[in-house]
Amino acid sequence: MIYSEKELASLESFYSNQLLNSTIPFWFPRSYDQEHGGYLLMRDADGSLIDDDKAVWIQGRATWMLSTLYNTVEQKAEWLEGAKLGYDFLNQHCFDADGQMFFHVTREGKPIRKRRYFFSETFYVIAAAAYAKASGDETAAANARRVFDLCIQYATTPGLLQPKYTNTRPSKGIGVPMIMMNTAQQLRETIGYAPCDEWISKWIHEIETSFVKDDIACVMEQVAPDGSIIDHIDGRTLNPGHAMEGAWFILHEAKYRNNDPHLIDLGCRMLDYMWERGWDKEYGGILYFRDVYNKPVQEYWQDMKFWWPHNEVIIATLLAYLMTGKEKYASWHKMVHDYSYKHFLDPEYGEWFGYLHRDGTIAQTAKGNLYKCPFHLPRQEWYCMQILKSYLS
Amino acid sequence: MIYSEKELASLESFYSNQLLNSTIPFWFPRSYDQEHGGYLLMRDADGSLIDDDKAVWIQGRATWMLSTLYNTVEQKAEWLEGAKLGYDFLNQHCFDADGQMFFHVTREGKPIRKRRYFFSETFYVIAAAAYAKASGDETAAANARRVFDLCIQYATTPGLLQPKYTNTRPSKGIGVPMIMMNTAQQLRETIGYAPCDEWISKWIHEIETSFVKDDIACVMEQVAPDGSIIDHIDGRTLNPGHAMEGAWFILHEAKYRNNDPHLIDLGCRMLDYMWERGWDKEYGGILYFRDVYNKPVQEYWQDMKFWWPHNEVIIATLLAYLMTGKEKYASWHKMVHDYSYKHFLDPEYGEWFGYLHRDGTIAQTAKGNLYKCPFHLPRQEWYCMQILKSYLS
Repeated sequence: MIYSEKELASLESFYSNQLLNSTIPFWFPRSYDQEHGGYLLMRDADGSLIDDDKAVWIQGRATWMLSTLYNTVEQKAEWLEGAKLGYDFLNQHCFDADGQMFFHVTREGKPIRKRRYFFSETFYVIAAAAYAKASGDETAAANARRVFDLCIQYATTPGLLQPKYTNTRPSKGIGVPMIMMNTAQQLRETIGYAPCDEWISKWIHEIETSFVKDDIACVMEQVAPDGSIIDHIDGRTLNPGHAMEGAWFILHEAKYRNNDPHLIDLGCRMLDYMWERGWDKEYGGILYFRDVYNKPVQEYWQDMKFWWPHNEVIIATLLAYLMTGKEKYASWHKMVHDYSYKHFLDPEYGEWFGYLHRDGTIAQTAKGNLYKCPFHLPRQEWYCMQILKSYLS
Repeated sequence: MIYSEKELASLESFYSNQLLNSTIPFWFPRSYDQEHGGYLLMRDADGSLIDDDKAVWIQGRATWMLSTLYNTVEQKAEWLEGAKLGYDFLNQHCFDADGQMFFHVTREGKPIRKRRYFFSETFYVIAAAAYAKASGDETAAANARRVFDLCIQYATTPGLLQPKYTNTRPSKGIGVPMIMMNTAQQLRETIGYAPCDEWISKWIHEIETSFVKDDIACVMEQVAPDGSIIDHIDGRTLNPGHAMEGAWFILHEAKYRNNDPHLIDLGCRMLDYMWERGWDKEYGGILYFRDVYNKPVQEYWQDMKFWWPHNEVIIATLLAYLMTGKEKYASWHKMVHDYSYKHFLDPEYGEWFGYLHRDGTIAQTAKGNLYKCPFHLPRQEWYCMQILKSYLS
């Protein structure tokens, strides 16, 4: 199948309508914490609050989302004021004395937990960068660049962060080059930062040479430092939705680089390999984890359907289709789009449920918790709306 | 319903037959690692090896199980030799230089991961104690008592182990008094150790006064230091199968203490409260996690059916029935027994699958991995066989 211009226009207005009339209004303005700053985002299906704690990743991601809507969709004062609440909360409460960020704080901003990786920091970078662009706040821009440099240090200096494992079986994950690539892309496209292009090229090279395995048609989630497969449970575990998110980060870069054919080919190979491994041919939807050799996986929720891989695959397939015109990508996009909006969308209160059983039934009703928040879904609806708009214009 | 003597005798021979002709032969002797010591226990449904790594908990648990079979069922040389393989591996490879144990090592015994709690140590204690009884090895007995004392130190000295959370919202879990109670019971019933009775009384008091909530008919998994409920996602999360395991540890203690009526009442209350919250009235089986106020839970596998809560509830309901004669416990035992042997048992290769979806379908085929091993199922079959034997004799 292919999408006609009319179908693409109708998709564009579907995503725009969902974003602005279902997803964003579910969260805002009611989640603004006018008393303590930041956002109250742990909510049940009907929007009632489950917990008033604040997950730091999520304070950053919501700040980014609100700033980005302000920067690209409409300069609504409510969005900019909301973004400032999150940005200020991050600065006031989410950094430890050693410069690392916390993972989880109380409503008032007292620390509950710090973790041994730096994803809170990468979300701070995109939040501060997008907020700097929205507000014109030069300190925010400087903070974004400074914490980005810190992330580079964490990513490139072994032992700087306390390790979770010994050195007996060293490994590296695709998560670091992926998130750093996306962080650099955001930084570049909001406030600009000279080192970004070179770093992005390095991380793409790292993904291509270490994680993408053409001989077995697979993108690994974790490999040995030399890129070889670690034949143990953890080393064999694939995360198809995550790898397909990586595919669209690379397609996005290909687009930025005047449709660089090598990057288009790389992104499409990653998508092809992991669609085949991730799409559930029995029930539809994207399986969470798979073993590279089809053995059992350790993680218990391995065959559940989570919201976010579906958001990432909706973007990846649509972008691949628009950039290549290949029919299979339109078919895949339609399959994952139809599955997702049929199974995850809550027709009563808006937004998506987060967690389905393999067979598509709802496993639990949370709309927001320590990990789920206004990020993957609104980002997908916003990104798809933007690329369709630019394609149709 | 009640169980007739004949039905109890038939249950006894069912458990004995399952234990000795299905469960144990699935694992041993093929899992003995004659080359590097210890056991190779990460296996798929058909027994094929998924991974040759060794989880330290599990090396200890399997050593305990083999020693216990030797001590109580039959003095088979194969079991004692197998126990020695595990006991020696634990001593040679599983302790770090600081005296703490690792969590996960390679086949050769090189450390992969150490965790911030001391469950590896408690399983070492029961392994060394049971092995000391089986072998007459006095050093093993001394090691069991020494590491038990160390566990007491870890459990009672705040800050001795590196904490995972800050001090902003202090909490304590039922896991520590539960596992320490069971460890002390094992120690007492194998090689004996004078301090055990007093510690067991303290931990039961701790469970009763801090975790058992009669006003809301609930056993909490985590509370504030003063025993109050922490009204956040983690603090509200219940683990019904775990609490019912605690119930039978207390009933076991009641039996040891000449059917102490207070302890029988406490164990039965815990069982009553958590059966009501854990039994799935729609599909049968024990739900993994529940929220005390029925809100959504953070953990993704919250409504899956895992093998081990079923083992613990089979023991708890049978023991409660034999100790009180109350009909409801026979009914509950029959419900959980029938559900479990219908859904978890693998009729082709023996042993149980570990992970079912809420509706009872099999989520994945592993028989052994980092957590599943020859422990909960053979312990259940062995324990039920023993109490039925003693009841029928």
